Amino acid sequence: MPRQITAFSNPLVKQARSLRDKKHRRAEGLFLAEGLRILTEAREAGVLPERLFFSDASHPLLQALIEETEAAGGEAIETNADILHKISGKENPQAALAVYRAFDTDLDGVDRAAAPLWIVAQALRDPGNVGTILRTGDAVGAGGLILIDDCADPFSAEAVRASMGALFTQRIAAARWDAFLPWLRAGPGQLIGTSLDAALDYQAARYDRPAFILVGNEQAGLPAAYQAECDLLVKMPMLGKADSLNAAVAAAVMAYEVVNQWRRS
Amino acid sequence: MPRQITAFSNPLVKQARSLRDKKHRRAEGLFLAEGLRILTEAREAGVLPERLFFSDASHPLLQALIEETEAAGGEAIETNADILHKISGKENPQAALAVYRAFDTDLDGVDRAAAPLWIVAQALRDPGNVGTILRTGDAVGAGGLILIDDCADPFSAEAVRASMGALFTQRIAAARWDAFLPWLRAGPGQLIGTSLDAALDYQAARYDRPAFILVGNEQAGLPAAYQAECDLLVKMPMLGKADSLNAAVAAAVMAYEVVNQWRRS
Repeated sequence: MPRQITAFSNPLVKQARSLRDKKHRRAEGLFLAEGLRILTEAREAGVLPERLFFSDASHPLLQALIEETEAAGGEAIETNADILHKISGKENPQAALAVYRAFDTDLDGVDRAAAPLWIVAQALRDPGNVGTILRTGDAVGAGGLILIDDCADPFSAEAVRASMGALFTQRIAAARWDAFLPWLRAGPGQLIGTSLDAALDYQAARYDRPAFILVGNEQAGLPAAYQAECDLLVKMPMLGKADSLNAAVAAAVMAYEVVNQWRRS
Repeated sequence: MPRQITAFSNPLVKQARSLRDKKHRRAEGLFLAEGLRILTEAREAGVLPERLFFSDASHPLLQALIEETEAAGGEAIETNADILHKISGKENPQAALAVYRAFDTDLDGVDRAAAPLWIVAQALRDPGNVGTILRTGDAVGAGGLILIDDCADPFSAEAVRASMGALFTQRIAAARWDAFLPWLRAGPGQLIGTSLDAALDYQAARYDRPAFILVGNEQAGLPAAYQAECDLLVKMPMLGKADSLNAAVAAAVMAYEVVNQWRRS
């Protein structure tokens, strides 16, 4: 049976609220996700929260989530919209949010044979881009997202929201470039970068499995030293005044080209 | 010669700051853009600000902008980082920002013959998506973005920033669906929608010029009544658990397919 909490000062409310800060997420090894749709995606992926807060248990999907959360040893807490607002910081909070244990992001946990396609992002600053790339990764059948160097936190509220649940279905790893490169070269894998200076059109290249699509920082793009390590450097057509795409858009256009080639063959 | 303003209470500072609110943008017919890169994109597209605020005139691109702004009858104002912070609301404001006259967004101003491709977005809520779609539109050689029904404001700071200057190179129109549809049918144009239920793969369809790619609301997608008006309904492969892409990502994947087909023929 869910317990009830309606006091702002309750330590569990304070702890959940603290997870809006990266420092506390790191310290506790926990993160927040909001909204029944995303929490249900998580449940369907076999991931249940440590703690579930909700204000209205009438929705059947929420009832299923409460039951499974409690059966798995987690805690379901009935509360009100004010408390949900306090935790999430949103004016119109969703009717449910939950605290999850952060996933292991060790590169050694990545089984490259598990999927034909992986996305690798370098120094991405925008958590919305991280989440959107996870969502695209799910759509193209990628195995996951490998975050290189200092990237936005994939467990931030904005990244979780933008992933629309893909955070729970995509493998996430984080590594420095100096650790990623030896890992990559210890097995099969074609590293694919994009560059305005590349001679090869992205549709003229041929992509091998497993493909690793490398996306650079929003402002600076991919450093030359990183480009130099790519097995393929390709360019996407840019027909206007601008010389680049949004990072999440570039990742998606590239990933769909790779998948489309494989669909044809 | 630029005048100097260092008082927070200066009416021009207050007016510029007020443009962060849609209500004031509407009332004044003005909007804000920040950062030398975007202001320079505007200048290169032939668009100069009514008023330019800057804190450090040493950059040659800023000097060029000051000269051209003043030559065109606009005002260049030297100020400091505190004032720029007050106007932009950002912790680390860019060294230049400017006030521009809002563009005419009347649908009758759109010349469909000016480009082979147009993007049409319906009830988009996220200004970042509006800006990102403008940026993509520039990259694929689209003529512009037609915003249908109640969309996020393309002149908001977030949309301007996400457009990376494409706001100044893409035509922007806004219209209700009931006005857009007769306008569309009064001339040539293939209206292309995406749907999970479509039988036709987006790579199997053949796209005609001018193509109008229709993108739906982030949450609800394209209403059935709008889908029914499309000349082509296509589906993009979704290989994972999720049933949709981010709206700006979907627009880009679709637009690149159209352009790629035309590149081959």
